[in-house]
Amino acid sequence: MEPVRLRDLAVRLDAEVVGDGEILITGAAGLEHAGPGDITFLARAALAGRLAACPAAALIIGPQQEADRPALRVDDPYRVFARLLSQLATPLDRLFPCGVHPTAVVDGTAVLGSDCRVGPGAVVGAGCRLGDGVRLGPHVVLEPDVVIGAESILYAQVVVRERCELGRRVILHPGCVIGADGFGYLSDPDGPTKIPQIGIVLLEDDVELGAGTCVDRATTGTTRIGAGTKLDNLVQVGHNVQIGRRCVFSAQTGISGSCRIGDGVFMGGQVGLADHIRIGDGVKVGAKSGLHKDVPDGQTVFGYPALDAVEAMRIAAALRRLPDLVKAVNKLERGTGASPGGEGES
Amino acid sequence: MEPVRLRDLAVRLDAEVVGDGEILITGAAGLEHAGPGDITFLARAALAGRLAACPAAALIIGPQQEADRPALRVDDPYRVFARLLSQLATPLDRLFPCGVHPTAVVDGTAVLGSDCRVGPGAVVGAGCRLGDGVRLGPHVVLEPDVVIGAESILYAQVVVRERCELGRRVILHPGCVIGADGFGYLSDPDGPTKIPQIGIVLLEDDVELGAGTCVDRATTGTTRIGAGTKLDNLVQVGHNVQIGRRCVFSAQTGISGSCRIGDGVFMGGQVGLADHIRIGDGVKVGAKSGLHKDVPDGQTVFGYPALDAVEAMRIAAALRRLPDLVKAVNKLERGTGASPGGEGES
Amino acid sequence: MEPVRLRDLAVRLDAEVVGDGEILITGAAGLEHAGPGDITFLARAALAGRLAACPAAALIIGPQQEADRPALRVDDPYRVFARLLSQLATPLDRLFPCGVHPTAVVDGTAVLGSDCRVGPGAVVGAGCRLGDGVRLGPHVVLEPDVVIGAESILYAQVVVRERCELGRRVILHPGCVIGADGFGYLSDPDGPTKIPQIGIVLLEDDVELGAGTCVDRATTGTTRIGAGTKLDNLVQVGHNVQIGRRCVFSAQTGISGSCRIGDGVFMGGQVGLADHIRIGDGVKVGAKSGLHKDVPDGQTVFGYPALDAVEAMRIAAALRRLPDLVKAVNKLERGTGASPGGEGES
Repeated sequence: MEPVRLRDLAVRLDAEVVGDGEILITGAAGLEHAGPGDITFLARAALAGRLAACPAAALIIGPQQEADRPALRVDDPYRVFARLLSQLATPLDRLFPCGVHPTAVVDGTAVLGSDCRVGPGAVVGAGCRLGDGVRLGPHVVLEPDVVIGAESILYAQVVVRERCELGRRVILHPGCVIGADGFGYLSDPDGPTKIPQIGIVLLEDDVELGAGTCVDRATTGTTRIGAGTKLDNLVQVGHNVQIGRRCVFSAQTGISGSCRIGDGVFMGGQVGLADHIRIGDGVKVGAKSGLHKDVPDGQTVFGYPALDAVEAMRIAAALRRLPDLVKAVNKLERGTGASPGGEGES
Repeated sequence: MEPVRLRDLAVRLDAEVVGDGEILITGAAGLEHAGPGDITFLARAALAGRLAACPAAALIIGPQQEADRPALRVDDPYRVFARLLSQLATPLDRLFPCGVHPTAVVDGTAVLGSDCRVGPGAVVGAGCRLGDGVRLGPHVVLEPDVVIGAESILYAQVVVRERCELGRRVILHPGCVIGADGFGYLSDPDGPTKIPQIGIVLLEDDVELGAGTCVDRATTGTTRIGAGTKLDNLVQVGHNVQIGRRCVFSAQTGISGSCRIGDGVFMGGQVGLADHIRIGDGVKVGAKSGLHKDVPDGQTVFGYPALDAVEAMRIAAALRRLPDLVKAVNKLERGTGASPGGEGES
Repeated sequence: MEPVRLRDLAVRLDAEVVGDGEILITGAAGLEHAGPGDITFLARAALAGRLAACPAAALIIGPQQEADRPALRVDDPYRVFARLLSQLATPLDRLFPCGVHPTAVVDGTAVLGSDCRVGPGAVVGAGCRLGDGVRLGPHVVLEPDVVIGAESILYAQVVVRERCELGRRVILHPGCVIGADGFGYLSDPDGPTKIPQIGIVLLEDDVELGAGTCVDRATTGTTRIGAGTKLDNLVQVGHNVQIGRRCVFSAQTGISGSCRIGDGVFMGGQVGLADHIRIGDGVKVGAKSGLHKDVPDGQTVFGYPALDAVEAMRIAAALRRLPDLVKAVNKLERGTGASPGGEGES
């Protein structure tokens, strides 16, 4: 980052200066990583105790916060910090430098919008259509007839199988696989017989999928991920799944075939959903939960099998008493004349 | 799909026409996706209620089913529907169009059967041998001395490490990794010391592995997956594992090193097996189960740690009573003179 | 392996011959895979019963072991066997044969040490610096400004995003993704807003990561994996995580953002950690555990939610009595005059 005076940064970020506005800021970093020239902020109030040991030159603070050094006061420090980070990120032009790299293989029938970047070795199949400003990293593979909306970014090694459709500003991290065959077989005496998977995947605008995440094509029709939904790394989405808008699922979560998930759903990591279940709008699912039935709008669930979170927490607490409960019941049975080694012992 | 009269489709599919055989069919789709020109069917009887809202032109029905519109009557509707889908799928020639693409890197010592297709950027190492009709997608990498049987399909970005062997009609979805080193170390005071992994992976005929699935090579000998076995996406198979024939494992399941699994085993998603255990023929494992000991032939298990499914379900039901059980026992202890806050409380 | 007399192998491995030193050894393999010319050993004492059925020509035995055939006596049979395996492994030169393959795309500003091998289609971005003897497999992608220490090996399809740093002798198996964006968003009424991830990943010397494993770059600062740590396949490491030295994590484990993990930590497969927790030195975590709070040095934990392993095992045992416990308490309630269908039934 070009060194900048705190008072100039304040103008750029629409902030109020607290203390000495003449100091030079040379970078931005989180509390744990900030050096002497950096500006930082508190991501969580619980971290305030660590501020004293942080050599940062300045802080971004909220309306109610005190500063022990020069600061910028804003309404939402994390948001302003994020804005600052975007100014410090590696420019996309360094990652996607060329127009179409000479080693890329672009079929003559593919149609590319203006200012598309296609990296080394990338493959754009017959009939593909790319909107303006699409960026494909090295070795991205688009099978025939893929459609990608403007300004989408596909990092290295992403694969999109035939006929799948991506909206605008979609981001796919390295190794994502979109549109592999769904997992469907008929049971036969000779073993499983493959059911052809002839549907597609549709990723709406502003979807972002993490590294290694897989979204299977539908048997017929569409596997759909709604606008603004973000999935972390190594997530599995089965065939014919419908995920709503603005959902956030953490890493290694798996959604079995034909599930329908509402808008604004949050899932922790390593969650698993059985097939054909419905999850309502605004549902929250605790990490590692296993769901095998529908969840109504707005509920928070947790556990394996998943229950309402309040009940699941009560059970988890009671479980720690279980070994002593067994002893207590044995004692009661002896005291009340129940046969020793009775039902409680079997 | 070329429009076809229902009576002509009946001949092609060896079916009996029910109602008007003159209507034109323009496509095939599942109940949820079928449009006005489509033929559809009921995948599950539970969906019958949704039939009224489905605009499909025709149905595929079983011997006992009633039809509210023109239909084809067959013995097994799902199977006939699957046959119809295979006629509608994107032709393999559109996905694997060329002979050997000019950007592919095929070692001079590799031997390719007749009609092999090798996609852009694919790498075929020294000493590889490919049967007739093998199809390699873009950027597939075969390290030296890999053997692949006839008619196998490896989609984009698949990696097969040196000396591994694939049977006939094997299908590997994008991003599969076959033959990476098994995870084996000696414990040393300076940290883990790598044990070389010099064995191979053998995938028998008709094995199909999902996107991102990893099968590690054996320390010595062979990691083997039996004929007709199907693994979903992001499955992990450790070194020296032996999986039988016609098994079906859902996504994100992990099989630790040296497990031996029988024939016809079904596993739900996110199952985990400890190393060195034996799973008998025909075993069924519920989703998300964690197994740490052998399971005999034919058993159904569930849970973490996994138990016989009937017992696991009884425990899961009893767990919901646990918080009240704690209260009941406390009350009993008070009533029978046991000290309040006694063993049940510790 | 070139056939060798047992007495010559003894010299090479610094071992004592037991029995006939003149026999010819033609290979080495584990107990289950050894053929008539092989030398083998017992990885676990529990396998001794299978020795009779093993046709191996010779054994590697420890100081206290008896041999039923010619043998080499050494202090640590597994270690000596591993040394032997390394002599039998496919030579690295067969896997990484060329200097820089003509189809590789190496930016003119990248600096390569002596004897680097760059495979077909590999991409080395602007400003990258590679130490001596670095080996890049086919289609490896290094985005700009990546730094890799001497003798590191990156197998096919590995992706390392911009500015990440790898130490010496690092091994990355096929499909690893280093430095994808961390999973960080601001909650907005319109949906999640991306927080730019401008930090890096640092993998210290002798780190080895399995196929498909993903390590996300930090929001700011560094996601760090300490020297000698080994992660299995399909492991997820979130942004800003700090993992110590000489740790071993099994497949499909997930570490959420900002966790701090000490040295010498062992984790089984499919373990999940909530974000921002601290795991002490020498901790052991049972397979499939879910951790949501700190664990002090040296503890062994297990379960979901994870508890001290002894407590977790006691609870798992008590759980099997739970259904009968419910019945016993109902009976006690009736016997002591508590209302039938009382609290224990709700």
